[in-house]
Amino acid sequence: MGKVWQQRFAGPLDERIHELNRSIGFDYRLGPDDVRVSQVWARALERCGVLSSDELTALVAGLESVGTELTEGSFQVQPDDEDIHMAVERRLTELIGDPARKLHHGRSRNDLVATDLKLYVRENTAAVNGQLSQVIQSLVTLAEQHQDTPFPGHTHLQQAQVISLGHLLLARAWSLRGDYLHLREAVGRHNSCPLGSGALGGATVPVDRAWLAKQLGFAGPAPNSVEAVTSRDFVLDILYALTRLGAHLSQLAEDFILWSSQEFGFVTLDDTIATGSSLLAHKKNPDVFELLRGKCGRLAGNLTGLLVTLKGLPGGYNKDLQEDKEPLFDSIETMTSLLPGLQAALEGVSFNTGVIAEKLHPALLSERIVAYLTDKGLPFREAYGICGQAVKLAEDTGLPLTNLSLTRWQELSSAFEEDVIDLLAQPWSVPASGVAGGSNRAAVKAQVKELSEWLESVATV
Amino acid sequence: MGKVWQQRFAGPLDERIHELNRSIGFDYRLGPDDVRVSQVWARALERCGVLSSDELTALVAGLESVGTELTEGSFQVQPDDEDIHMAVERRLTELIGDPARKLHHGRSRNDLVATDLKLYVRENTAAVNGQLSQVIQSLVTLAEQHQDTPFPGHTHLQQAQVISLGHLLLARAWSLRGDYLHLREAVGRHNSCPLGSGALGGATVPVDRAWLAKQLGFAGPAPNSVEAVTSRDFVLDILYALTRLGAHLSQLAEDFILWSSQEFGFVTLDDTIATGSSLLAHKKNPDVFELLRGKCGRLAGNLTGLLVTLKGLPGGYNKDLQEDKEPLFDSIETMTSLLPGLQAALEGVSFNTGVIAEKLHPALLSERIVAYLTDKGLPFREAYGICGQAVKLAEDTGLPLTNLSLTRWQELSSAFEEDVIDLLAQPWSVPASGVAGGSNRAAVKAQVKELSEWLESVATV
Amino acid sequence: MGKVWQQRFAGPLDERIHELNRSIGFDYRLGPDDVRVSQVWARALERCGVLSSDELTALVAGLESVGTELTEGSFQVQPDDEDIHMAVERRLTELIGDPARKLHHGRSRNDLVATDLKLYVRENTAAVNGQLSQVIQSLVTLAEQHQDTPFPGHTHLQQAQVISLGHLLLARAWSLRGDYLHLREAVGRHNSCPLGSGALGGATVPVDRAWLAKQLGFAGPAPNSVEAVTSRDFVLDILYALTRLGAHLSQLAEDFILWSSQEFGFVTLDDTIATGSSLLAHKKNPDVFELLRGKCGRLAGNLTGLLVTLKGLPGGYNKDLQEDKEPLFDSIETMTSLLPGLQAALEGVSFNTGVIAEKLHPALLSERIVAYLTDKGLPFREAYGICGQAVKLAEDTGLPLTNLSLTRWQELSSAFEEDVIDLLAQPWSVPASGVAGGSNRAAVKAQVKELSEWLESVATV
Amino acid sequence: MGKVWQQRFAGPLDERIHELNRSIGFDYRLGPDDVRVSQVWARALERCGVLSSDELTALVAGLESVGTELTEGSFQVQPDDEDIHMAVERRLTELIGDPARKLHHGRSRNDLVATDLKLYVRENTAAVNGQLSQVIQSLVTLAEQHQDTPFPGHTHLQQAQVISLGHLLLARAWSLRGDYLHLREAVGRHNSCPLGSGALGGATVPVDRAWLAKQLGFAGPAPNSVEAVTSRDFVLDILYALTRLGAHLSQLAEDFILWSSQEFGFVTLDDTIATGSSLLAHKKNPDVFELLRGKCGRLAGNLTGLLVTLKGLPGGYNKDLQEDKEPLFDSIETMTSLLPGLQAALEGVSFNTGVIAEKLHPALLSERIVAYLTDKGLPFREAYGICGQAVKLAEDTGLPLTNLSLTRWQELSSAFEEDVIDLLAQPWSVPASGVAGGSNRAAVKAQVKELSEWLESVATV
Repeated sequence: MGKVWQQRFAGPLDERIHELNRSIGFDYRLGPDDVRVSQVWARALERCGVLSSDELTALVAGLESVGTELTEGSFQVQPDDEDIHMAVERRLTELIGDPARKLHHGRSRNDLVATDLKLYVRENTAAVNGQLSQVIQSLVTLAEQHQDTPFPGHTHLQQAQVISLGHLLLARAWSLRGDYLHLREAVGRHNSCPLGSGALGGATVPVDRAWLAKQLGFAGPAPNSVEAVTSRDFVLDILYALTRLGAHLSQLAEDFILWSSQEFGFVTLDDTIATGSSLLAHKKNPDVFELLRGKCGRLAGNLTGLLVTLKGLPGGYNKDLQEDKEPLFDSIETMTSLLPGLQAALEGVSFNTGVIAEKLHPALLSERIVAYLTDKGLPFREAYGICGQAVKLAEDTGLPLTNLSLTRWQELSSAFEEDVIDLLAQPWSVPASGVAGGSNRAAVKAQVKELSEWLESVATV
Repeated sequence: MGKVWQQRFAGPLDERIHELNRSIGFDYRLGPDDVRVSQVWARALERCGVLSSDELTALVAGLESVGTELTEGSFQVQPDDEDIHMAVERRLTELIGDPARKLHHGRSRNDLVATDLKLYVRENTAAVNGQLSQVIQSLVTLAEQHQDTPFPGHTHLQQAQVISLGHLLLARAWSLRGDYLHLREAVGRHNSCPLGSGALGGATVPVDRAWLAKQLGFAGPAPNSVEAVTSRDFVLDILYALTRLGAHLSQLAEDFILWSSQEFGFVTLDDTIATGSSLLAHKKNPDVFELLRGKCGRLAGNLTGLLVTLKGLPGGYNKDLQEDKEPLFDSIETMTSLLPGLQAALEGVSFNTGVIAEKLHPALLSERIVAYLTDKGLPFREAYGICGQAVKLAEDTGLPLTNLSLTRWQELSSAFEEDVIDLLAQPWSVPASGVAGGSNRAAVKAQVKELSEWLESVATV
Repeated sequence: MGKVWQQRFAGPLDERIHELNRSIGFDYRLGPDDVRVSQVWARALERCGVLSSDELTALVAGLESVGTELTEGSFQVQPDDEDIHMAVERRLTELIGDPARKLHHGRSRNDLVATDLKLYVRENTAAVNGQLSQVIQSLVTLAEQHQDTPFPGHTHLQQAQVISLGHLLLARAWSLRGDYLHLREAVGRHNSCPLGSGALGGATVPVDRAWLAKQLGFAGPAPNSVEAVTSRDFVLDILYALTRLGAHLSQLAEDFILWSSQEFGFVTLDDTIATGSSLLAHKKNPDVFELLRGKCGRLAGNLTGLLVTLKGLPGGYNKDLQEDKEPLFDSIETMTSLLPGLQAALEGVSFNTGVIAEKLHPALLSERIVAYLTDKGLPFREAYGICGQAVKLAEDTGLPLTNLSLTRWQELSSAFEEDVIDLLAQPWSVPASGVAGGSNRAAVKAQVKELSEWLESVATV
Repeated sequence: MGKVWQQRFAGPLDERIHELNRSIGFDYRLGPDDVRVSQVWARALERCGVLSSDELTALVAGLESVGTELTEGSFQVQPDDEDIHMAVERRLTELIGDPARKLHHGRSRNDLVATDLKLYVRENTAAVNGQLSQVIQSLVTLAEQHQDTPFPGHTHLQQAQVISLGHLLLARAWSLRGDYLHLREAVGRHNSCPLGSGALGGATVPVDRAWLAKQLGFAGPAPNSVEAVTSRDFVLDILYALTRLGAHLSQLAEDFILWSSQEFGFVTLDDTIATGSSLLAHKKNPDVFELLRGKCGRLAGNLTGLLVTLKGLPGGYNKDLQEDKEPLFDSIETMTSLLPGLQAALEGVSFNTGVIAEKLHPALLSERIVAYLTDKGLPFREAYGICGQAVKLAEDTGLPLTNLSLTRWQELSSAFEEDVIDLLAQPWSVPASGVAGGSNRAAVKAQVKELSEWLESVATV
C-alpha cells in the first residue's frame, strides 16, 4: 500500500534510506499510548464537527481492536510501516476503511509523538519510582538493624571516625530519596499536553486543547505549539534524572564491592546473589554490584548522546529528534532491571559485625584525644597538633595509640593525666545523643522515623 | 608556618604533589562566603560554650578584617596555603592569635566547603536568572513587534507552514522560561545546611544545627551528616541546569546564524554586534551567535566531567570531590558572560520583513488546498493525497501552485471549483483566531500577556 | 542443567539478578567467533598434551556443528545460559559429551571474550571501512563533476570567497579519508592476542601463545596477561574512531540540509531519497541527512558511556566490563546502516548550478578589490581598509559593489583607475592555477587524482 | 587604534560582545608560536615577491622583538586586542610601522591559528610523553623489585589467583606505554601544514606551501585548504588521547587508594606524599591518587565538550571553533601537573610484603586442587566441579581449605590421595616458568627487559 505521502513523490524511497529512517523497531513501545491518544483525538474531532458520531464510534472501536492486537502481540508490522503512528493508522484503515482516513485530520506526527512519549514517560517513571521506594525501604530496614553497630567511617578511603553503620546506610537512603523526588519533579515539570499543536503552528481544526489535555491527564495544553513539538526537554530531564540516580547507585555499589572483598570482609553475600567463575572454582563474585556500578556509564552515555543530538538544531521539528527514543527506552529499561537486582542484593547481604569491630584502627582514637584536650581548655588547633604528634610517635615506635605510656603522653602535653589511659581503653559504641543529623542513636532513630513515614506516604499514592 | 596538619608527618609534602593538591588558585572565589560561614560558626561555638564572649568578639572582628582584605584584593596568599579555608584560618591567626586556634573546633573542611559552595551557588544562580529574565524580556518584546509578521515555519529545515514570527520567537521565550524555573528548582531542592556535619559523623560539639541553618538562610539542617559532606548533587544539578539552558541557547543561536546568512537574509545584525574578518574586507560575522552555539559544548563538558568524577566513589568525602569547583565556576561564569552578549545581540537584530515575505514558497499553499478539500467533505487522507499530486504536478511542470489552471485542478479532483484560484491568490497573514497556544493573533497576544506578567512577577522578587 | 559454577553455591541465583547478569541477549553476536577461537584453543590443548587427538577431532567437529546452528539460526538459547561462551560449551556438551568438559581447561571467559571481541572488531571495522571508501568515492565523483562550478565558500555561514564546489566537496572526502585511516590504525594498534591469559595470570597449561596468536591472525600474543584480560582500550579506540567519523558526518549532513532548504536552494534531492510529511502534503524532507546529523549523538554517547564505565575500575577483570559490548555493537551497527544511507543520498542529490550562481553575493568582490590595490603597491592592511570602506558605502547607499561609480571608487583611493569597473564585472570562475591544496583547477585535479589512486589502493586490499 | 576591520563597520562592537568574543585571555599561550609562524610567513612573502628584502628584514627583526616581549612577560595587551594574532600584528605595527601592514597579506587568522595550534600541540605533547616515560620507568623499577612477590590478583575485587606483584605493576606499565604510542600517533597523524590555506580557498599570493611546511617541521602542506582551516581533528585526537591516558591513571590510582586503606594495608605512603586532615589529627590521606582518579573527569569533559561543539557545524571556519583551545590547554596542563605528581607518588610508596602474604586467602588454593585433579586425568569441568564442592564444604564447616581432612577430600573424589595435604601446605611463590606474558619469573623478566629497552629507545629520541 506504500507510504501515505507517496503520491507526492515520483518513486519509492531508496531501500537503504527506508531502513535507516524506520523507527518501528523501537517505537512500537508507544503503541498502546498511540491508540489511547488517537481515541481522545477522535473524540475531539467529533466535538468540533469534523467527525460524525457514527464515524467516531467506528474509530474508537477500530482503535480498540488495534490496541488489543498490540497488547496481545498479534499486530503485524508491514514492510512499509515507517513508525508506530503510521502502522496504527494503516491497520485501522484495513479494519474500518474510510473513517480511518479522517483520523489524522488536523494533527501531525509531530504533536502526536510528543504526546505519546509524555504518556510513556509518566507511566514508566512511576514504575521506576515504585521500585526505588522499595530499595530505599530495604536500606532503611538494614540501617535500623545496624543503628548501634560501630563502623569505621572513611574519608579518602582511610578510616576517619567511628560512626553508626546505620547512619552510613541512611546516607544512601537520603540520597536515593533525593532521586525519587527529583524524578517526580522532572515529570511534573512537563505536565502540559502537546496534542493540538499540529506540525508546528497549532491544529488547523478548532479542537479544544484544554479538553484534550484534561482527557489525557495533563494540567493543561502546552502554551506554544512550536515549542510543544520541538522540545525534548522532558526526555532530557528524565535522562538526567536517571543518570543522577545511576551515579548514586554506582557509589553505593562501590561500597558493597569493597566491603565484600577478602581484605575488608565486612559483608557476606548470600549465595543466591553472587556468581561464580568459569575457571576458578572458589570464586564468588558480586556481579550485581559491579553491574550497578558499570551501568552508570550507559545512563550517562544516553544523556550525553541526546545532548549532542539536540545541540544546535534549528527551530521546528527536525528528524534528528527521532534519536530521543532509544536512549530514553534504554535508560528506563536499564533502571527497571537494575533496581529489582539491587533489591535482591540488599536482601542478600549480611554484615560481619565481628570482623568490622576487629578492623577498627587504634588511630581512630585521635578524636577522643583531641576532645580530651579541648575539654581541658586547650584551643582546638593546639590539641590537634599535640594529638598529631602522638599519632606520629605511635607510628614511629610501632605501637598502637592505646599502648603509649602515660609518660609518653605527658611528654607531649602536661594536660594529660592518668584518666587518658582509661579513656583510650573504652570500647567503641554509638553515642546516645549528639547533633541533629549526626551519627548518634537519637539522630539515627529520628532519621529512620522520618524516612519510614515518607515511604509510607509515597506508598499510598 | 607550614600546613596545620604537619606535626603528624615526618617531612614536608613533595612539591609536585603540593602543587597538584592546592585549590586556592580557584577556590579563592569562596573567600567571602567562607568568612561569613565562619562568623556564624563562631557564634554557634559561643552559644554552646566553646568560646567565651570575648573570644567571639575577637573572632568576628578578625574575620571581618579578613573579609575586607579578600574583597579589596589585599589578601596575600602564602605558598603553604592549600585552600581558601586554611588561608583564611592562617590569616586570622596572624591577625588575632589564640582565639583563631579555636575556630575550627568541631567543624571540618568537609562540611565547611559544602556550606560555602551552597552559598556561592545560591548567589550566582540568582544572578544568572536575573540576566536570563532580561533575555526573555527581549524575546517577548521582539515577538510582540512581530506578532503579525507571516514567517515560513520550518520543519526538517524545509518551509512547512506560514506562522507568526512572533509565535516562533515566543517558542524560544517559553523554552528559556522553563530553564529559569528549572534552575530555581535546582537550587531550591538543596536548601539544607551541611554545616555541623563535621568530617562525616556530625559535629562533636553540641552546636545547634537548626540555628546555624537559619542564620545562613537555609530551610533547615541537612538530615544526614555523611550525605551532607559527600553529596555533590547540588553542583551536578546546577551543571545540568546550565547545560540544558546552553542547549537551548545553541538552538536559538543556530536560527539567527541561518537567518543572517546571505541565502536566508531574514535578519540584519547591527554593526555593533557583528565582527569582521582579518583577511576578507567585506565580512560581517555573527560571532556572538556562534559563540552561544559553540559554548554549549563546554557546559556539557563540565557536566560530563563531574559525572565521570562522581562515578563509583566510595562512601565519605574523597579528594576527587575537589574537582567539583572548576566546572561549576566555569559554567557559571560562561553563562554570566553569554547572557549579556545575547541580550546585546537581541537588541541589535532587525528582521527584514520584505525579504521574508518574498521567500515564502508557493508550496506552502498545500495547507489551504487540503483544508479546501476537507471543507468539501473529503476525508483528510484523501484530500492530502490529491494535494500531494498537485504539488508533484507543479514540480513536474515547473509551475508554482498558484499558476496551475483550473482544468488541471479539476483533473486531480472534481471537488475543485473556481474559487480555488482565488483562494491560492490570497496574501499570507496571521489569522485572527485559532487553537490555544497556536500561531494566531489571539493566542500570540495571550502568550505575550502571560509571559509579561510572569516577567513582572519575577522581577519584583 | 544449571550454571557450571553452581556446585560451589548453596542455592540458585536470584532470578532478578540472573536477568541483570545475563549477556546472551546481545553477546550472541560473538557466537561464530567463539566457535572459531574454541577450535583453535582445542588444537592448542592437543599440541600441549591436554587433549588426545581423538578428543580434538570430536571437539572440532562438535564446535563446527554448534557454529552451523549459530549461523543457521537453529541454536536454542536455554534459560540458564549466562552468555554465549557458556551457551556454546553447554551445547557442545550436549552434542559430544565428555571431551566438551575439557575444552575450558586453562582458559577463562576473561581471555576468551577479549579474543572473541577483537575478532569481531577486526571483521566489522573492515566492513565499515569498505562502506566508507564507497562514500568517499561518491564524494570524489561529485567533486570531479563540479570542479569548475563557482560556489560561495562560507565562513561564519557568511559568504566569504568564491571557491570551486568540487574543492569544497573534496574537503569532506579528505576528512573521511582521515577517518578511514584512523579507524584502520585503531584496529592495528591492538593486534595482539589475549588468548592464553587465563583469568588474569596466564594460562595454567603450557599452550603456545605465539602459535595461538598466529592461528587467529594476530601479530603476536598480548605481552601481559593481566593487561590482556582487563584492557578495553581496543573497544574505546573504536568507539572514539566511530564518534569522530560521526562528527564529520554530522557536519557534512548539516551542509546538505542547509543546501536543500528553500532559502538556499543549492541542491535538489531526488524523490527516492526524500520523505514526506503525514500532515503537510507538499513536504519533501531530507530525513537521511538529519539522521546522519542526529546519530552523531548516540555515537558520542556510546563513547562517553564506556569512559564512565572504565573510570576508576580496580585492577583485574571486573564485571563492569560487560558494558563494553552493547555500545560497541550499537556504534558499529549504527555506522553500517548510516553509510549505505549516505551513499544512497549522495547518489540522489543534484546541484542547482544556476541557483548557486545567482546567489553569489556582490560583496564577494572585496577580494578582487584588495588584490587590485595590493597589485598597485598598497600594503595589504591599507588596501583592506579602503575596501572595507567601499563595502560600507555600498551598504549605506543600498547599491551592490558593482554599481559604485568610478568617482566613488576614486574618492576612496586614488589608486583606483578605470579598469576597476571592468574588473568587478567579470564573471566568476575557478582559476586555472594557484597554491597547492587551494581552490584552483590544477590543485583540485591533483586532489581528485590523489584520492582516486588512494581509493584504488584500498579497494584492492 | 580600534580593531583592524573597524572601517567596514558603522560603530564599535558592543562591549558585552567584545568581552565574549575575546580570546586573548587564553590564546596568549600561542604567542611564541605565532611569532615563529609569522617570521616564516614573511620569508615566504619575500620569496614570492610580495615583500622586498628590506621589508623582510624589518619584519623578522620586529617579530623577534615582539617574541622577546612575549617570553619575557613585558608584552602589554591592549583593550582592543581580540586575540593573540591581532595583538602581535598591532604591536609589530607600533614597532616597525608600514612593513607590518603587509604581514597579513594572503593569510587569514583561519590558517594562522590552525598552524600555531599544531605547533603548540607538537611541543606540549612531547613534554607529556617525556613525563609519561618517566612514570613508566618508575613502574618498571617497582615491578622489578617485586617480580617475586606473591600477590593476590583480583577479579571482581575478589582474590582470584596468586600472581607476581611485579607482573601486576607491569600491566599498568604496558597500558601506559600504549598511551605513549597512541599520543605520538595522534600527533603524527596530523603532520601537515595548514599555512597558506587563507580564509578557506587557499592563499591568494603564490607562496610555496611545500616550503612553508618544511620550514615549520611538517611533512608537507595540508592537502585541501578548506579542510585545513576547518578541521579540529588534531585537537580532538589529542583530547581523546589524554582522556584515554586519564582513564588508565584513574584505574591505577584506584588500586593504590585501595591498597593504602587500613583494610588492605598493602602499601604505606611516605609522609612526603600524603596529606592530613584539618579536623582529624590521625589522618594520612592519599590525595594525590584521589586527584589522579578524579581528574579523569575533566579530561573526559574536555573531550565531550569539543565533540558537542563540533557536532553539526556547517562547512568552513565557524567561530565556534574558538572553543577548541581552552579544553586543549586545560587537558595538557592537567596532565603535565598530574604526571609529576604520580612520579613523586610512585617514588614514595612501599609495599608491605608481610601484610600481603598474610592476606592471601586459603581459597586461592582452588587452582592447585583443580590442577591436581586434571593431572590425574579428570576432565577440567569435572575437576572444577569437585573443587567447587570442596570450597563450599570449607565455608559450611568454617574451616580453611588447608584444614580439610584427607577423608573429606576423598569423600569428594576418589582421585584425591595423601599428597593433596602436602600440596595445599606449600607456601606461595611465583613459578619459575610458564606461558609467555604470564605471571612467572621468566615472563616477568622478559617484560622488564622489553620495556626497559623500549624506554631507553624513547629516551634517546
